Amino acid sequence: MTALNDQPITSELTDEEIFRAHEGGKLAIGATASLADPRALAIAYTPGVARVSRAIAEDASLAAKYTWAHRLVAVVSDGTAVLGLGDIGASASLPVMEGKAALFKTFGGLDSIPLVLNTTDVDEIVETLVRLRPSFGAVNLEDVAAPRCFELEARLIEALDVPVMHDDQHGTAVVVLAALRGANAVLDKDIASQRVVISGAGAAGVACAKILLAAGIGEVTVVDSRGIVHAGRDGLNPVKAALAEVTNGSGLRGGIADALKGADVFVGVSSSKVGEELIESMSGDSIVFALSNPDPEVHPEVAGRHAAIVATGRSDFPNQINNVLAFPGIFRGALDAGARRITENMKLAAADAIAAVASDDLAADRIVPSALDPRVGPEVAAAVALAARQDGVA
Amino acid sequence: MTALNDQPITSELTDEEIFRAHEGGKLAIGATASLADPRALAIAYTPGVARVSRAIAEDASLAAKYTWAHRLVAVVSDGTAVLGLGDIGASASLPVMEGKAALFKTFGGLDSIPLVLNTTDVDEIVETLVRLRPSFGAVNLEDVAAPRCFELEARLIEALDVPVMHDDQHGTAVVVLAALRGANAVLDKDIASQRVVISGAGAAGVACAKILLAAGIGEVTVVDSRGIVHAGRDGLNPVKAALAEVTNGSGLRGGIADALKGADVFVGVSSSKVGEELIESMSGDSIVFALSNPDPEVHPEVAGRHAAIVATGRSDFPNQINNVLAFPGIFRGALDAGARRITENMKLAAADAIAAVASDDLAADRIVPSALDPRVGPEVAAAVALAARQDGVA
Repeated sequence: MTALNDQPITSELTDEEIFRAHEGGKLAIGATASLADPRALAIAYTPGVARVSRAIAEDASLAAKYTWAHRLVAVVSDGTAVLGLGDIGASASLPVMEGKAALFKTFGGLDSIPLVLNTTDVDEIVETLVRLRPSFGAVNLEDVAAPRCFELEARLIEALDVPVMHDDQHGTAVVVLAALRGANAVLDKDIASQRVVISGAGAAGVACAKILLAAGIGEVTVVDSRGIVHAGRDGLNPVKAALAEVTNGSGLRGGIADALKGADVFVGVSSSKVGEELIESMSGDSIVFALSNPDPEVHPEVAGRHAAIVATGRSDFPNQINNVLAFPGIFRGALDAGARRITENMKLAAADAIAAVASDDLAADRIVPSALDPRVGPEVAAAVALAARQDGVA
Repeated sequence: MTALNDQPITSELTDEEIFRAHEGGKLAIGATASLADPRALAIAYTPGVARVSRAIAEDASLAAKYTWAHRLVAVVSDGTAVLGLGDIGASASLPVMEGKAALFKTFGGLDSIPLVLNTTDVDEIVETLVRLRPSFGAVNLEDVAAPRCFELEARLIEALDVPVMHDDQHGTAVVVLAALRGANAVLDKDIASQRVVISGAGAAGVACAKILLAAGIGEVTVVDSRGIVHAGRDGLNPVKAALAEVTNGSGLRGGIADALKGADVFVGVSSSKVGEELIESMSGDSIVFALSNPDPEVHPEVAGRHAAIVATGRSDFPNQINNVLAFPGIFRGALDAGARRITENMKLAAADAIAAVASDDLAADRIVPSALDPRVGPEVAAAVALAARQDGVA
């Protein structure tokens, strides 16, 4: 079984079709309760609904059974790091959040509402969501700029007793790990002996480093716009300082060229370019994930002259590494299990579940399932729910 | 044309059917954009959506065209005055807000999301909605206790450039006026010569007084738990003090019995009882709206022995006066017109539109359309949109 309609995009998207598809927005509310006759109306609204409200007032746990909140994801953004567009503000970020909600529904069977905020103050965002807490069951943070996103996510996890995940961090990290597992299966490589270079120390780069370390990778070196992140570098922010302590065990210094020489894996999650000669300098059978969108760090055809496996974030090249493989199932699994948080093991389980779906049909140009593969969401959800129970957070 | 299925409720609602109908909540999100193939995905999400986000960043007015916010109503409550249950909290109020959202969809074709708040502080509620402003296009306040609801509504109207309406006030007032117009048409009475007594000086009572005065009623007397509201009474809160200045022109003193003697119209929007002898003391051809739910101030059969027309808030008696006749069309009309606020004229226009739908089939037991009459929402919306343009708020 594969996705029903997975044919590649053969012509450029036109502005006209894009804007037409967005007219009126991309979401709608539906009533799941009938209101078709007086009896139905009296059940779903007054006087019937009063019985349900009174029951919840007497036993708060019943809200999980008789409201939509327990299965509702708030897709939250302050619009400060929207796609490759940067800080364009809350209102302009809304089409992205609507798209995210549509993906939640299609691939995770989950309801979600975009909440975009006219404030970038961490305290205010936390305060706002704490006040709205009874309205939703989970928080998907989206397109919040680094390094503020790290503090915001940590503060929300602390303040709310529901699953909170910044998808630009962990969704990306999960699919990168899944893709690496797929690539390693094709190439018969062992993650424990690999050295990976991550270009970018923002939301995605930091999370990729963490999950790869949690998965037992040999070594991670992170490179940002000022070069290799190492403990001796001046002016590291707290997040990068923490990163320096657990990465770059070989003590490399310098820039991206120094890092990539002899490296086994490249993960690009910044918008900086990487020349062909740098890819050529990597180890034999190298793996290149050039995930910057819409312009990969290195064109996949160029990388393919030297690397054994190449992936991008784009749907018009093979091996698209797309967060949609991860976040719908992660949140669905967490909510199905009634998890209060999303643990590292739940993320690792999600990555393994994605890799497992791809495993029956692996090839150098098919290291991850299609973004449209309907098996992925349910498999990820089941694995995440199991991990939640094993971790005791459900 | 009437509602397709309007048969009365013939047996008691059971707890079992009520709770079963509420399992999982009553709302769902739907994606209106296709995500069925890679091209559709690339249009609705990355990379296509970036074009739309960039366009909105450059011209903020485009958000109205390319997001769902401009047609989305936030149904906001702090859970302090939920139905007849009182202050049961935000979470327990959520089933009511979900029901409201379902009604918005069914009768107004409008999308809405419940936002229930774990705070009852007016400043905090205003602040929260100001921060979330780009996420929605209108605010329906619901089940907020008086007198705080008056300040909250006024503050939100001031702080937000979108339609804001506390439905327990104005939705009720609009249908009461519509019902009075219907009753007067049946009885051939003139509103300008009528004296109305309103029992209850909470959200609904105050708003009913205001709209009836705006509609040119002869005189309004408001009675609360301490008796007739008049300027000479000690300890009036600011809302009641303002009310005293524009009502009770005859200078009545005393309690409900003093007020009702010789009155033409009774509007009950408190939970206090009114004995048969008080109804008997009203003028000939009196009109009684006993709207308290689930227990009317006076049983309609008892009131019917003396009054010419009797209405209640219940669906199992004739003449149900139900807010659902008003709020879906009011918000739909305001949003269709792009109105920045909801004016008194828009409310009056809504009442007249409701009354007009009933006018082709009027009788003493049919003074308002059925709550399920599909003509009402569109007619109200059209009238409200026209009034918004006439008032220059659109």
